[in-house]
Amino acid sequence: MVSLNSDMGESFGIHSFGNDDELVSLIDTANVACGFHAGDPTGIRETVAKAVAGGVTVGAHPGLPDLVGFGRREMKLLPDEAEDIVRYQVGVIVAFLRAEGAELDHIKAHGSLYGMSAREPEIAEAVARVAADYEVPLFGIASSEHEKAARKLDVPFVAEFYVDLGYRADGSLIVARRPHATPVDEATERAKRALADGIATAVTGEEFAIRVDSICVHSDTPNAVDIAKAVRGVLSAHG
Amino acid sequence: MVSLNSDMGESFGIHSFGNDDELVSLIDTANVACGFHAGDPTGIRETVAKAVAGGVTVGAHPGLPDLVGFGRREMKLLPDEAEDIVRYQVGVIVAFLRAEGAELDHIKAHGSLYGMSAREPEIAEAVARVAADYEVPLFGIASSEHEKAARKLDVPFVAEFYVDLGYRADGSLIVARRPHATPVDEATERAKRALADGIATAVTGEEFAIRVDSICVHSDTPNAVDIAKAVRGVLSAHG
Amino acid sequence: MVSLNSDMGESFGIHSFGNDDELVSLIDTANVACGFHAGDPTGIRETVAKAVAGGVTVGAHPGLPDLVGFGRREMKLLPDEAEDIVRYQVGVIVAFLRAEGAELDHIKAHGSLYGMSAREPEIAEAVARVAADYEVPLFGIASSEHEKAARKLDVPFVAEFYVDLGYRADGSLIVARRPHATPVDEATERAKRALADGIATAVTGEEFAIRVDSICVHSDTPNAVDIAKAVRGVLSAHG
Amino acid sequence: MVSLNSDMGESFGIHSFGNDDELVSLIDTANVACGFHAGDPTGIRETVAKAVAGGVTVGAHPGLPDLVGFGRREMKLLPDEAEDIVRYQVGVIVAFLRAEGAELDHIKAHGSLYGMSAREPEIAEAVARVAADYEVPLFGIASSEHEKAARKLDVPFVAEFYVDLGYRADGSLIVARRPHATPVDEATERAKRALADGIATAVTGEEFAIRVDSICVHSDTPNAVDIAKAVRGVLSAHG
Repeated sequence: MVSLNSDMGESFGIHSFGNDDELVSLIDTANVACGFHAGDPTGIRETVAKAVAGGVTVGAHPGLPDLVGFGRREMKLLPDEAEDIVRYQVGVIVAFLRAEGAELDHIKAHGSLYGMSAREPEIAEAVARVAADYEVPLFGIASSEHEKAARKLDVPFVAEFYVDLGYRADGSLIVARRPHATPVDEATERAKRALADGIATAVTGEEFAIRVDSICVHSDTPNAVDIAKAVRGVLSAHG
Repeated sequence: MVSLNSDMGESFGIHSFGNDDELVSLIDTANVACGFHAGDPTGIRETVAKAVAGGVTVGAHPGLPDLVGFGRREMKLLPDEAEDIVRYQVGVIVAFLRAEGAELDHIKAHGSLYGMSAREPEIAEAVARVAADYEVPLFGIASSEHEKAARKLDVPFVAEFYVDLGYRADGSLIVARRPHATPVDEATERAKRALADGIATAVTGEEFAIRVDSICVHSDTPNAVDIAKAVRGVLSAHG
Repeated sequence: MVSLNSDMGESFGIHSFGNDDELVSLIDTANVACGFHAGDPTGIRETVAKAVAGGVTVGAHPGLPDLVGFGRREMKLLPDEAEDIVRYQVGVIVAFLRAEGAELDHIKAHGSLYGMSAREPEIAEAVARVAADYEVPLFGIASSEHEKAARKLDVPFVAEFYVDLGYRADGSLIVARRPHATPVDEATERAKRALADGIATAVTGEEFAIRVDSICVHSDTPNAVDIAKAVRGVLSAHG
Repeated sequence: MVSLNSDMGESFGIHSFGNDDELVSLIDTANVACGFHAGDPTGIRETVAKAVAGGVTVGAHPGLPDLVGFGRREMKLLPDEAEDIVRYQVGVIVAFLRAEGAELDHIKAHGSLYGMSAREPEIAEAVARVAADYEVPLFGIASSEHEKAARKLDVPFVAEFYVDLGYRADGSLIVARRPHATPVDEATERAKRALADGIATAVTGEEFAIRVDSICVHSDTPNAVDIAKAVRGVLSAHG
């Protein structure tokens, strides 16, 4: 069954962010920020508690150590450094899950760490090694280095499809610095097409094959809740 | 048996700190910094690996979120915030221990968080709640709020004695912003007296009773290694 | 003439905050965050440019180094440290003003640094020394240590009145962790009374004398813009 | 006359770094860290005061916002962001210089910001625009984008030669994550050759022409002081 996932807990102190309260009733699993690109200890605790209370499973959403850039500015990290920052952040989510009597569901890199690990085998394997340690699936882009690293390390892999981001013709995702609203009908159409036919369309018009285990809806686009509702509908119809 | 503990992993990126390499062969258990007052992901990984390889058990050493002040400037935190930052940081150490196949030994607050939790029951209980969750001992000052919180929450308590810091006449510890060297013979004398007679002397000359389960030697005083060697000798003689 | 001031530039990276765009046309002078409690280099540049373009003068709004706590958690700083963080942050605002061909208007401490310097003479003088160096006024609470330090150091002093915060019976301000909405008519009434009669009312009901050179409206309360409009009206009527 | 410059103020809170106290009597001008890759407000104040007292001129040494990586991990910044972080940091140094009655001498980017701006015209011009605003020279690599941007913006340019780092055959500098000691006689030989013949040697053996207005000695190599003394001697002999 195809799941619906969303990033959560990306507030920072008094700076609220996203639409977590409404999304939690719509999604299956949450990727919770860990404090490096966003999220602070109290916000992480509240987010994990909210998710668990809502029956939503929780994965770790580790990002680059760049609060100002929200983890969306690439940084040249050594593979060991990448593994260390992922392990650090995963430990944080596991700690707050433990307090709620829940377990880690998956690992999904955030922003530029997601993008870098989709392209660079050494960074992908660094992330996947932590997933292997925790025996949880890695979320990522099908056929990218995400999937190759997961396969290599015997880590379950969950192929994601983004209805609110653009793709290049080679199937790679365009990670934007600032989110924009995708029209709901367009997002709906993309979800239907990907689920029914396994086809997605690049921003330049080309079609390409896409495998979908989970659909991601960003929490911080202006119409995130409407998109999540629409995708939820598509998923229900799809069965 | 009385143990010897020391803070470790307080380097920060390229900024090295302390005498970890030499201390690891002298101590029984290490309190490892978690990134808030010092420590970075790669340094924490290396420190935990070094300790485990050296047969030294590892506790978490959570501090206030203040790198510039090294966690030695008090901050007014809500009890929930204190618990959240401790849980966050403990999760980090548990994650790196897991990678080494080892388990958390204890929790010991750092610097001003140690000082605040020695005095304020709500902060002490916040820290102790995390120790209760992980079923590990809390390190602290005998008869202070540290111990009261541990007793209240049924958490094992390990009473520490500091041979390289000053005490007030009421038995409270003077947490200094910058470490200074304590003469080795003075530290040795203090250790002997505390172990043999259960007596310590305040900086103002008064004697007070002290209970000692573990002796702490700071890693960053200029003569830390010599002091650790001397205390190790006293502990061996004490048996 | 009594001015209207507001905090601005308290966004942080992708995390927006406040109502700067609407407030800039209503206020006389802006207190711009400098990156310690909020604000990032790009946001500060944009805020300063917006203020200067809108004919609003710009003061520095230095805060405690605590992004997660938004500078609203007290920290025990040495007076020298307080002076150093204020000078650091003032330098930042002066640099962005220079790029716009404008000059620093004043210094006003933020959050807990404002509260601490209202009570502690040494912290107040630390802040005032920087104002003296730049020959700009210090904003603060009348008769508090703010004013005493300014008088002592021959720094012009601007007495502020807050229409959207509570006061204690002794005239001291209650700095809240999270802002709440003050009803517009209540804020209007407070402004009128303070301007006409020099009287304010504590949260416990007592009246006390208040001197007002500038009224502050917070940018982040839910109804900030409505309050600013109302106060603007009161100020116009007052002449 | 060829000058001798060194990075200073790269301590961070309690974490000391470099050999500032000894270097200050050997160098002509200091590049002072500004808090993004290293340096904290109190340390910056002390460093600037020490330099000014020692008759050493002070330039700003802005770095990437990456304390853990010491500004030595490249980050993908927009040109505007690069300009904003440079202006922010330059403002800080100017503020502390003002308190000492001194003026900014130059701007020299640190670590990866230095390397990025040597290669990328847009980043180089972002840095140079701030130098133009302050009417101070830009330090950099001769013939690199540093120099091109300075020429384009009519900013005085100071060509640096590094006696303690390796060069590629194309004259580009190899920025290392961790410093290593260069033998003093080797550094001396390099300085002599560069000054006398305008020739340097790449790590791969090729010779290339080098123009030298200032020699840089890093403060954090193990033998920094000996190298600085040796280079000082070469400069004196050279006249």
